[in-house]
Amino acid sequence: MLHAQGAASIMRAMKILLRLMLVLVAGAAVVAQEPANGFRERAIAMTRDALRTHNSHALLGRLLQYAPKRLAGSPGAKDAAEWGVAEMKAIGLKNVHLEEVTVPVWDMGAVCRVQVLHADGTVTELRALPLGGSEPTPQGGVEAEVLAVKSFGQLRALGDAAKGKLIFFARPFDTSLLSAGQAYGESVVQRGQGAIEAAKVGGVGALVRSAGSGGLEDDFPHTGAMNYADDGVRVPACALSLKAAEALNKALDAAAGKPVRVRWVQDCANKGTGPGWNVVGDIPGALTPQEIVLIGGHIDAWPAGDGAHDDGAGCAHVLEAARIILGSGAAPRRTVRCVLFANEENGLAGGKGYALQHLAELPQHVAALESDSGGFAPRGVGVGGGKAQLEAMADLALHLQALNLGTVKPGGGGADISPMAAHGVPQLSLEVAGERYFDLHHTAKDKIENVHPRELALGAAVLGITALHLADAPTNLPRQAAK
Amino acid sequence: MLHAQGAASIMRAMKILLRLMLVLVAGAAVVAQEPANGFRERAIAMTRDALRTHNSHALLGRLLQYAPKRLAGSPGAKDAAEWGVAEMKAIGLKNVHLEEVTVPVWDMGAVCRVQVLHADGTVTELRALPLGGSEPTPQGGVEAEVLAVKSFGQLRALGDAAKGKLIFFARPFDTSLLSAGQAYGESVVQRGQGAIEAAKVGGVGALVRSAGSGGLEDDFPHTGAMNYADDGVRVPACALSLKAAEALNKALDAAAGKPVRVRWVQDCANKGTGPGWNVVGDIPGALTPQEIVLIGGHIDAWPAGDGAHDDGAGCAHVLEAARIILGSGAAPRRTVRCVLFANEENGLAGGKGYALQHLAELPQHVAALESDSGGFAPRGVGVGGGKAQLEAMADLALHLQALNLGTVKPGGGGADISPMAAHGVPQLSLEVAGERYFDLHHTAKDKIENVHPRELALGAAVLGITALHLADAPTNLPRQAAK
Repeated sequence: MLHAQGAASIMRAMKILLRLMLVLVAGAAVVAQEPANGFRERAIAMTRDALRTHNSHALLGRLLQYAPKRLAGSPGAKDAAEWGVAEMKAIGLKNVHLEEVTVPVWDMGAVCRVQVLHADGTVTELRALPLGGSEPTPQGGVEAEVLAVKSFGQLRALGDAAKGKLIFFARPFDTSLLSAGQAYGESVVQRGQGAIEAAKVGGVGALVRSAGSGGLEDDFPHTGAMNYADDGVRVPACALSLKAAEALNKALDAAAGKPVRVRWVQDCANKGTGPGWNVVGDIPGALTPQEIVLIGGHIDAWPAGDGAHDDGAGCAHVLEAARIILGSGAAPRRTVRCVLFANEENGLAGGKGYALQHLAELPQHVAALESDSGGFAPRGVGVGGGKAQLEAMADLALHLQALNLGTVKPGGGGADISPMAAHGVPQLSLEVAGERYFDLHHTAKDKIENVHPRELALGAAVLGITALHLADAPTNLPRQAAK
Repeated sequence: MLHAQGAASIMRAMKILLRLMLVLVAGAAVVAQEPANGFRERAIAMTRDALRTHNSHALLGRLLQYAPKRLAGSPGAKDAAEWGVAEMKAIGLKNVHLEEVTVPVWDMGAVCRVQVLHADGTVTELRALPLGGSEPTPQGGVEAEVLAVKSFGQLRALGDAAKGKLIFFARPFDTSLLSAGQAYGESVVQRGQGAIEAAKVGGVGALVRSAGSGGLEDDFPHTGAMNYADDGVRVPACALSLKAAEALNKALDAAAGKPVRVRWVQDCANKGTGPGWNVVGDIPGALTPQEIVLIGGHIDAWPAGDGAHDDGAGCAHVLEAARIILGSGAAPRRTVRCVLFANEENGLAGGKGYALQHLAELPQHVAALESDSGGFAPRGVGVGGGKAQLEAMADLALHLQALNLGTVKPGGGGADISPMAAHGVPQLSLEVAGERYFDLHHTAKDKIENVHPRELALGAAVLGITALHLADAPTNLPRQAAK
């Protein structure tokens, strides 16, 4: 009898849990009850505020008008920082200030001309951009034979054949991968390390197929960070548009083993270091202000376009999230800190500087949440760590699902907040529909006309709702294993 | 002791279920095990096929080239149907054929000119499109005073004041709603019923603010279906662009109560009825071919643009879903039937005709799944009915989450499959990120350049994976309550 009761209890418990599971699968409409504390209504009001005003798009417009070119170390970076301070004050953040860090100074220059010199005397112009941090070509430019490779292994196996050549890193972006981010990660290695590998084999420069997901007719090169070995020769590097890379492939195919020569001039320049600024402002916590939920994006951008998605959108998300939290009348128990990081693209001096300057405070950084995937329709929030962190976010998952704003997913973080991971600060990220991101990222097409106001507003809503949830939770998110 | 064991069992059961819940919240990465039947690998292969080939975009391109204007009853509708047959055969579908239905014949005409005649003799041109099914303006056009209203209640309360006037239905699209679809639903009432209400009060025509989510500068009118009462006067109706509606608001404000006159000419025409064609093709089931999983979109489109999203995308989704199922080597036990419906936009003759012509087969229609929300990034699958249907789809939810393709959500269906709901056929829909849809829907901007190849491909993958899952499930989806 008792046993039967036990079985009945198990069945009851299983039924309850199955119902919960169903809710989790089903999301929105099945979630009937309103949590007692009114969080759901507040989240809806915040989202509608963001949607009604489209203020995030207006914020982004002002940034791009005031500081369209704002790579760390450039004159525009100061303008951007000033913009950030002014907007934070206008929103009503407290303790608004700049925190200085030392950033690399690299000038993209005005010229990047790459020409295929055909055997018949004709010339094909290839659209290209210097890679970020690259040296210029030597005085008068460089002219050399091109050697195409699809992997570093293939390059190394060529031995002396690569000496004196321009190395063309020709591996395409694998658009068949389910995750565009993964395809980017696999593709971007040749951008980051190409110049190092080219120099190792005696190459005189690196021509890198853009790490982009556009079509084969896409003629917008994608710049981005590249590296040099401390003890290696610093050969120049540039990104070819996909169309240019295809044209170079075609020229090599047509030559059928005979040499194909390229002439290349670029006048970018490394100019040492200079000051940069993280922009910081707080919604002070009502109960435990020393505990901090950090939300951040980065204010620097490659000057190819205007950095509308990367990461103007993140800055707009952060500021708008703060505005709608304040506008909702919430007074979260912990501090919500907004940080616009100075230097994500080339050096990460913003994130490293923040972690160092706030070292003593990091144990009280309850969470760090970055938006750096563009201003697209939100898919929810990525959460680093593991089951413990995910479990602590289960409530939030229900709220997001109910509002059709995505859900909570494993795996989160961002470059700027990553230096805090070593101190156990939980790492989260705003997740968005990323299908278009690598068409635009680091190109001249990264402009405000490619940011959809409603999509941007919904991303800000997810960031604001998540920040408020974390800042007002009864207990802190479990710390991550420091790494 | 037994009791304690019972409690321990409960705890164990709860732990297992809690872990399952976590998986459901967490999605992808936490889902470690591969189901025994290899469905997951097949789903991945299908998705990669769609992504690698971008064949859905090529399909859509061919449709829009061959039959850019294909409203039911128009010459292009026949071209579109022929295209559908050819594509189905090329993919390898069996039993490919047309099924004739009777559709309305309405010609949008060549002229829709709306002018505000200001008191000072100046004229403001307003961009407008005839509403679908509208009568033309009387010979020589109509010129009358404008009366703006924001609701039918307001209009009825005006009594005789509306007599002889052009009624301007001026209620804006509420962009602050979390669901763009809900905002559309609220807005579209004045488009559908405006002419009826205008005629009731003696108005001579309906000028309707477009049911669209663009900005106030958006100058692309949104057409769409409208209705007449069987026994009412059939006054003409057109859609004003948002910019035009704002200009008319401004003119009314400036006149401060004095009359504002509008001159309007449109030459659209109702021309009775004619033939239309549902395009049908099957992947015959390997075990129970008499059981049918229907996937469909509609092949007709408003001729304002090319109907790239509405619903060229749905047609491409359906055909590509079939192609990747076949390409995966699957031989599902039930039949997967592809249907491109003839006439969703004005009359629903395609869906009604299908349900009637296949009446005897409907008890063996295991499910009907429609794609008619555009070619945007998928959010998963909407499932009509209730808990029983959702529960039966829990496996699929895990697969979709693992592939970052969204999840299963309550609420699904589509206009073309809705006539089958009365016979208990479970109603499902492809769900996509809908933030941009009502910017483009029924306008001249609904062109292929606004359809992203990767997003379209992922939608096709979700449709294909879902169709295969339903067609190969060990048991049928529970029937819906007939309605």
